[in-house]
Order: sequence, then C-alpha cells, then structure tokens
Amino acid sequence: VSVTAARGFVASGVTCGIKPSGALDLALVRAIEPAVGAGMFTSHRVPSPAVTVTRAHLGEADPQAFVVNSGVANAFTGERGHLDAVAMASETARLLDLPAEQVLVCSTGVVGGLLPLAKIRAGLPGAVAALAADGGPTAAQAIMTTDTRPKEALVERGGFAVGGMAKGSGMIHPALATMLAFVTTDYPLEPGEAAAFLRPAVEHSFNRISVDGECSTNDTVILLANGASGAERDDAAFAAALGEVCQSLARQIIEDAEGVTVLLEIDVRGAANDAEATAIARRIATSPLVKTAAFGHDPNWGRIMVAAGSAPYNGGFAALDGGRASLSLNGIPVFAGGSPVAGDPPMDGPALSIELDVGVGDGSASYLASDLSYDYVRINAEYTT
Amino acid sequence: VSVTAARGFVASGVTCGIKPSGALDLALVRAIEPAVGAGMFTSHRVPSPAVTVTRAHLGEADPQAFVVNSGVANAFTGERGHLDAVAMASETARLLDLPAEQVLVCSTGVVGGLLPLAKIRAGLPGAVAALAADGGPTAAQAIMTTDTRPKEALVERGGFAVGGMAKGSGMIHPALATMLAFVTTDYPLEPGEAAAFLRPAVEHSFNRISVDGECSTNDTVILLANGASGAERDDAAFAAALGEVCQSLARQIIEDAEGVTVLLEIDVRGAANDAEATAIARRIATSPLVKTAAFGHDPNWGRIMVAAGSAPYNGGFAALDGGRASLSLNGIPVFAGGSPVAGDPPMDGPALSIELDVGVGDGSASYLASDLSYDYVRINAEYTT
Repeated sequence: VSVTAARGFVASGVTCGIKPSGALDLALVRAIEPAVGAGMFTSHRVPSPAVTVTRAHLGEADPQAFVVNSGVANAFTGERGHLDAVAMASETARLLDLPAEQVLVCSTGVVGGLLPLAKIRAGLPGAVAALAADGGPTAAQAIMTTDTRPKEALVERGGFAVGGMAKGSGMIHPALATMLAFVTTDYPLEPGEAAAFLRPAVEHSFNRISVDGECSTNDTVILLANGASGAERDDAAFAAALGEVCQSLARQIIEDAEGVTVLLEIDVRGAANDAEATAIARRIATSPLVKTAAFGHDPNWGRIMVAAGSAPYNGGFAALDGGRASLSLNGIPVFAGGSPVAGDPPMDGPALSIELDVGVGDGSASYLASDLSYDYVRINAEYTT
Repeated sequence: VSVTAARGFVASGVTCGIKPSGALDLALVRAIEPAVGAGMFTSHRVPSPAVTVTRAHLGEADPQAFVVNSGVANAFTGERGHLDAVAMASETARLLDLPAEQVLVCSTGVVGGLLPLAKIRAGLPGAVAALAADGGPTAAQAIMTTDTRPKEALVERGGFAVGGMAKGSGMIHPALATMLAFVTTDYPLEPGEAAAFLRPAVEHSFNRISVDGECSTNDTVILLANGASGAERDDAAFAAALGEVCQSLARQIIEDAEGVTVLLEIDVRGAANDAEATAIARRIATSPLVKTAAFGHDPNWGRIMVAAGSAPYNGGFAALDGGRASLSLNGIPVFAGGSPVAGDPPMDGPALSIELDVGVGDGSASYLASDLSYDYVRINAEYTT
C-alpha cells in the first residue's frame, strides 16, 4: 500500500527533532522515473508559505519529489516563513540533484510557529539516504500529527497501481481542510493531464468530509504519475481507481477524526440541485447539535431537520420543503411528509446513517463526518499547552 | 425590570405541565393600553408554525398580547402543528376578549414533538387570572428551557421605559437563532413605526451573538409599544434605549450559554467593509478550534488567524492581509505585520478579548460568543434521552 506501491517511487520517514516526542516528523517521496503531477490546495486567504511555494513550483515544472514536515505548520509566519519554505525545498532539491522547482514542500502542525529549519536541514541527508521502494509506510507515519494511525490506500487495476497516504484529524473541512494527501501512480499521463483527473477525485472525497468545519492554511493534495507501469491507457479505469484511493483516504481521515466515537454517513437527495444537496449535507455534517446528539446516541432527529433547513446557499438557505421532506436514521423513518413518525430508531452502534429527502428536486450529495465528543474538546483544549 | 416595567403592561407565568420537571412553562403578556408592535423572525427554511402564525397576525393587526410555551418548539410538526399554533392563539384571544389576530404565539423547546394543546388550554385560564403589573419576572422564568437563569433588561430615560425579557442558551446564532426576546415600552409610536426601530436594534444585538452557530426554527423578537408614558417623542433617545435593552439581553444569553466557561468578546476592524468584518467576526465566533482553545485557556492564537482567513463571504472568503494583519488577546499583541510576537498573553479569566485588525480597509464589527466546553457536549448529548 501507500505511496511506494506504484512502480518507480521511493520514500522515507525520519525523525529530525521537531516533535518533542521524538516521533517521525520528516517524510520524503521521490519519483525515480520522470513523473508528471498536479496539486490542489486550500482556498484559505492566507495559505501557508509551503502552499504558495508548492503552487509556484507546480507552475514551473512537473514535480519529481516532495518533502513534508509534521509538528509545525509554517502558517502565519510572514516573509520569514516564505524564506523557510523556499529553503526547505531548495535544500531537498540540492541533495536529490534536482532543480528546486521540481521539489514540492508541505508542512502540518501548530499554526503560528516558525519552521525549525536547522533541524530540517540536519534531518534531510538521513531522509535522502533512507529512500527506499518499501519506504511508503514509514513516510505515512512521518506526516502524522494528532492522527492516531497512518492512512494509506492502494488500488491495482489493468496493469497499473494508484497508491496514497494522507494525514489529518482536526481542522478538517472541505475547500480543503490541515489535511495532506499524496497519491502516486505508475499509470501513464502526459504533462498537463494530472490536474484534470485529480480535481473530480478530490471533489467527491476530501471535499466531502468534515471533522469540525475548519478550513486550514495548509491543505494540500498532490498526485504524481510516472508511467512506470507501461500499462495501456484506460482513462476511465484510472479515474475510477484514483477516485477509490481518494475516497478511502478521506474515509480513513474521518474514522480517525479527533475524538470520534460515531461516524456520520449523510446522504441527501431530492434537493433543488447537487450544489444545494451538498450545502445541506455540509450543514448537517458541521452542526454541533447533530454531532453532540450522535455522540450521545440520542434520537433527537429534529436537530437534523433544523440543520437541513438552514444550510447557507447563495446568500440565503438551500431549499427544503417541510411538507414533503422525509428523514430516516439507520434505515428507520422518523419524519415523513411533514409529520413525525412514531417510534425511535436504533441509535447504538459506531455509525449513524442519515438519509434525508429534501422533497424539492433531483439533487443529491453524500458526506462523511465525525461526532462531537468530550475527547474532541479535550484534545483541542490541551493542544499547545 | 422585564416586560412589565413599562407602564400599561401585565404579565404572568404558570405551570401547565409541559415540562416533566413541573417548572413554569406558559407565559402571557398583555398591553392594557392599545399598543403597536413589530416582530423579527428566524430566516429558517421551515419556520415553526408559531412563527408563521405570528407573522401572519402581525400583518393583519397591531398586537396586544403574546403567549409563549416552553418545553416543546412545535417545529417540523406539519399541518397539525399549524392548527395547534392557531388554536393556541385563538384560545388565548378568546379568554382575553381580543380578536385572534391581535395575539401572537411563540413556542420553544424540543423540535419534532407535537404541542400538548390540551395542557396549554387547561393552563391558559390560570395564566389570564394571574396577569399582573409585577408579573414580568415570573413570565421571564416561564419562557426558559436549558437557560440557568432568566434574562431581563430595563432602560428608563426621558420619561419612558423600555423593558425586555429573553430566553436562549443553545441553538443560538444570528439570522436569528431557539431564541425568544420580548421588549415592551410605553414610548409613543404610531402604527407601522415599530419595525423600523426594531430592525437596527436586533441587527447589533441578537444578530451578533453565537453559542453554536445553529439557526433555529423558532427565533422571534417582539416589540410592543403602548405610549402609556405620555412622554414627548425623542426618537434618538428611544432608539438608543431599545438598542441597550436588546444588547443587554443578547449579552445575558451568551453569559448563560450552554456549558459556557469563557466569554469571547470579538472586535474586528480594518476589514474591507462592515459586512466582511461581520463575516470574519462570525467565523471566529463559531470556530470549534477557537472555542475549545478558549475553554482550555490555551494561547493558541494561530487558530484565530486561521479562522479569520476562512470566513465565508460572497461565495469566497472575506479579505485578510496576512502581511498587515495584527491580533491582540486580552490587550497583548500576539501577531503583527505578518509575524508572530514573542510572549504568551494571560489567558486565565472568565472573558477573552479578541482584537483583530484585518489590515485591509475600514470595516468593523463586534461579536459575542461562548466557548466550547465539556458541558456543552454533555448538555447536548443528553438533551432528549
């Protein structure tokens, strides 16, 4: 599994001393066959310098490697942060004997602290020396922050492989959220083609999950494709495989969300259009009252309807017909045609299926979210102190 | 204080048996001098029948009384819910010898349950009999749900009085949020004038607070003015007094927010315009990561900057200049001109002052919010079960 499953990629993960715990905190991935690539990034107003540098490099050349540190996000760090991100990429490129613009850089961790560049410089030679065809799982560990386990995925199909790793457990929300995901493939793509495959895959995976509705400064998804499989082109098969890898990684992020005890699987249909369905699903996915009720295994379905009817859309709220809407929890109807349905659904269990028909049109959307637990509060009340 | 402070109003609060605890759950307020009035309501897509009936009545006549039950919100109850709200208003009007359209009706409590109309019918004669010029404080108790204390306010000025009561401690968020507020005054207003005074007062009070970002189906603010003071018109003085009463009630709602341990006082300036400043302040006020950090007295100011840079506005994010922005916590600068400022601010204390200069323009806005505590989760995980 992971980012070294596809042929022609090597990776490593080392400890460079950013994390006080001494855990792995520096990951490196390199394509050893010439690769093409694409990236998608946070839409935050003040993206991390890591994001602005990576975006600039992608505009100049196809990427051959990326370096990731965990522990410090290098966000809201001003001009110094920009110089640090540039230095992190250049130093990595020098050691790999690549042009600087072929190296991408990512950071994740606490916002507002400067990158410990000396530690990263000191750790890089070891990371380069450790690059190996079985290094993917170690790299997946080195990008973790509050994650409790690494996230990896692999789809093999038609002679090619799509492998990926991701991190993220808080500040997770579409558009994107501190989530990093890296996908490598030995499927053959021409320069300039990667972005068109990556965009829809991200839209229906990482952009359909929410832990806490927070959009981070560092969210990045990177795709590298080196063609090393020698497989015939079958773009539909590749798009499907890429979509499956992204959805698997996105689901793993929610399954490991900060403090998660219940997984919310939200399916909205009958909305005016898909965009309104997405707005409604997102509103349910981010509602503190829905998420605390899920945590309490409380069949308080009224909160779901309240959230659904107040989903921001186009300066107003997305359409919902209270007289035609219906809602089922774990397959049991609780509201139909404007009226409550007697009887409480079973609410025990580690997942809660929320199926809502808005009663307006044909739009639909799905969303994955975590509940809001004591542990989410504990983890985030104690994060830096 | 409260809704009977102005001359010419009587009120009562009784127990009719909706709340299993036996607490007060039915409130009645009546103008005994002819009054004019106005209301502002939730923008939820499926407002409670109480809201639709009240809005319809306000369109037909100036209101002389309102009746409020707590314990059940009468929301998502379909046609039956509408008939129940109509019956609640008509029965009250019959007992008060008023036309039905001069009586407004409000409900607050659990969403999705039918109104226990028989209990309300049985309780109303007692509520009418108990109407008294000192009944305001009892009425303020009868509208409480998860509130731990009643919210009342009074401003006396220039020969007139403006008194009010409110309830709300969860599902609180602008546009409006299950918040009810009632303001009475003996200031002289002509028919049709009340709304123009109420709108700006609400905009800068109830629409600038957030407990949990939830918009409810029942939010209602009612203003009744009967002119009983005989005071001279001084509209500026009245507008100021009305604004002060609304701001006091809004602040009391946040001070009694579900699980609150820290009050967040958010001041944003330097935004592109006031609307963008409001969007940024609202984003900070609703950020789970900012609110859990406040609960943990954690000087993790990066989360505030991250939230500020991802404030939804016009389909994108409100402008923030990372290189010119500055942030102070409790008066101590932590970020300035694009760089962190060394030193941690004092974070102990029951209030956290957040002063953010966005570095873009002249827009400003203020917001009040509660933190996100274990108790918020506990209260909302256990609400109906």
